Amino acid sequence: MLLSRILDPALTQGRLTLIDPQGHAHRLGPGGGPEVAIRLRDPALPRRLLLHPELATGEAYMDGQLTVEQGSLRDFLALANQCAEGIARMPLQRLLAAVGRPLRWLHQFNPARRAHRNVAHHYDLSDALYDLFLDRDRQYSCAYFPRGDETLEEAQALKKRHIAAKLLLQPGLRVLDIGSGWGGLALDLARHDGVDVTGLTLSAEQLKVARARAESEGLSPRVRFALRDYREETGFYDRIVSVGMFEHVGVSHYTRFFRQLGERLAPDGVALIHAIGRADPPGDTNAWTRKYIFPGGYCPALSEVVAAVERSGLWLTDVEILRLHYAETLRHWFDRFQAQRDRARALYDERFCRMWEFYLAGAEMAFRHGRLMVFQIQLAHQRDAVPLTRDYLYAHGGAAPAEQPLCGQQA
Amino acid sequence: MLLSRILDPALTQGRLTLIDPQGHAHRLGPGGGPEVAIRLRDPALPRRLLLHPELATGEAYMDGQLTVEQGSLRDFLALANQCAEGIARMPLQRLLAAVGRPLRWLHQFNPARRAHRNVAHHYDLSDALYDLFLDRDRQYSCAYFPRGDETLEEAQALKKRHIAAKLLLQPGLRVLDIGSGWGGLALDLARHDGVDVTGLTLSAEQLKVARARAESEGLSPRVRFALRDYREETGFYDRIVSVGMFEHVGVSHYTRFFRQLGERLAPDGVALIHAIGRADPPGDTNAWTRKYIFPGGYCPALSEVVAAVERSGLWLTDVEILRLHYAETLRHWFDRFQAQRDRARALYDERFCRMWEFYLAGAEMAFRHGRLMVFQIQLAHQRDAVPLTRDYLYAHGGAAPAEQPLCGQQA
Repeated sequence: MLLSRILDPALTQGRLTLIDPQGHAHRLGPGGGPEVAIRLRDPALPRRLLLHPELATGEAYMDGQLTVEQGSLRDFLALANQCAEGIARMPLQRLLAAVGRPLRWLHQFNPARRAHRNVAHHYDLSDALYDLFLDRDRQYSCAYFPRGDETLEEAQALKKRHIAAKLLLQPGLRVLDIGSGWGGLALDLARHDGVDVTGLTLSAEQLKVARARAESEGLSPRVRFALRDYREETGFYDRIVSVGMFEHVGVSHYTRFFRQLGERLAPDGVALIHAIGRADPPGDTNAWTRKYIFPGGYCPALSEVVAAVERSGLWLTDVEILRLHYAETLRHWFDRFQAQRDRARALYDERFCRMWEFYLAGAEMAFRHGRLMVFQIQLAHQRDAVPLTRDYLYAHGGAAPAEQPLCGQQA
Repeated sequence: MLLSRILDPALTQGRLTLIDPQGHAHRLGPGGGPEVAIRLRDPALPRRLLLHPELATGEAYMDGQLTVEQGSLRDFLALANQCAEGIARMPLQRLLAAVGRPLRWLHQFNPARRAHRNVAHHYDLSDALYDLFLDRDRQYSCAYFPRGDETLEEAQALKKRHIAAKLLLQPGLRVLDIGSGWGGLALDLARHDGVDVTGLTLSAEQLKVARARAESEGLSPRVRFALRDYREETGFYDRIVSVGMFEHVGVSHYTRFFRQLGERLAPDGVALIHAIGRADPPGDTNAWTRKYIFPGGYCPALSEVVAAVERSGLWLTDVEILRLHYAETLRHWFDRFQAQRDRARALYDERFCRMWEFYLAGAEMAFRHGRLMVFQIQLAHQRDAVPLTRDYLYAHGGAAPAEQPLCGQQA
């Protein structure tokens, strides 16, 4: 089988057994790692996997045409990630990637109306779904695990405190939160640091929840949420924060994004962007992810982000590269989702559950074995808006705050 | 005078009085800052300043055709820096810069033989000269001022300790120091951390001093120095460090530099590059600096460095942007040089002294008011070669080591 002849040299560790539609088993890889067997149940699948590997693998898994017979989905995706990295380094693949590059901006062309639609695709899914796998505060972004063995709740609380430290908050400062989600970060900053927060989201579902939470906590005069594109914001802020939203901006809009950020930020202000990036050179979003999970989304190479910051005239005052933290976060999400899979199936259907578990496990493996990471960049107009050294970020005790009001229906 | 009509709108603060060769005074700028008067003594100078501002300003100062009549050289260069930033933002200047960009790689084409010559130009100057303005350990790179009021000796010691922390050293590790200068960092790492260091320099003068210091400290079996280009190194190291050398590499050699770094670094190794960068987009080296101070030198935009790291397949594990630290370092150097100016004149001549003070003050102002900074980037093959978070960098007491053997003839 041509497919097995191509995959075999790309596997440098572990064993992948492909059972083809005719029932023949093809053993790939040198062994010495995870042992995985998958069955391809559709005669057309091997060809589709060759032509559109990213899209066909995910779709076949969703449709039950690709099933894992030995080992776990996570093990299979760890091996698949190895294959993809190996193949991407082959000369033909490099050439194809270079040829396709000029068109990739099309995948990330996100004018305001399309941005709304893209966001609704993902974030307007049922509240109940997100409660099945996220933490109590519904933080839908990379947590922060200083020791590595924190609970998800602890690690998400530590993430918010780490970001707050980078923002150098003082009571009464005006904070803009671009991509405020279900409001967890905005509420946390108002509660712990006494700041005044405006949160922007494009998801009507998230807006509703965030507003209700601010109301029920009695924080609504100091924490406001709006359904508004970042380009339409006209306020003026001491601090700007954006967590897990920059992935939806699209490369061709970066210059505009940072210019707008500069225009909304006070002269002595500080901003913090937290987003997924790639350690590899600029590339493209996985076709399956783009189609099913995040239309219009793109995880940039850091060089693309830094180049846009340089054009904006802002100072880049710190760059942190969080490496395995998102792999750990996604492992927690995957485990929680699996534990509640019956409830997810009741909300949607089996195909949706297979899509979701493929998404969570695939993303985990891209952070654990591929080249994805999370960057936190701190920005300012003035080079001395933040302290001379980074000691101030590490002067705390490091303990997570004990009390955290719930989000949504969890108890 | 055309010159004053061009400079006036670029000055947004302070007062610059230009006394032209005919003795007429032109008052520029809105006031409210430093008050400086300069005299242009050569009738051809106003035109030369228009055509080649960077080169002509420095040359006229060196030759005594431009003299500071009120205020200090540092104040004048602070205003000149403001003018340069203002003019660089004018449409015509932007166009000219864009047109010139394709040729700038020529200024940084540094094959091994030219690299040798470029280094000799600067670093083979008299030992006695460097003793006049550097600290006792002869650290010729940005110091680290956590409080801001440390002495130069303290701040240079703290810089070495900060770098050592980022390298996660353990006794017995093999360290490569690319651009080892007079050996101060290599000796410090061997002395405090018990590592085994190989230092590379292209300066015969520096090599001699570094070897003598290792010998006299009894560290010579564990600390070796060689006159060798980084491209010719064939050893294999646990740690690689390079401080203040990357500025001499040249953009067209970055891919090669990081590939070589990856090939010399152990699979679980850690590397740290400390160098001057610009917060602006890619540009060119100041023509005067290129001609008189650092031929072949270039301070890259961070985006250029990060893009090269991405192509190398290495992990960028941390980026620190040190902003005002080099301005403080240069202020110390300038003050020390001024205090020893008579001795410098005895070594060289008045023109050399004026060149050197123009270099030190100009560089300080570029860090204080312009867009220069220092970046420290930490690199590894494996994403988990360094701890999950950066707490380990800030767990120390922060005190500078008390004892420091002397370098050179200082006492």
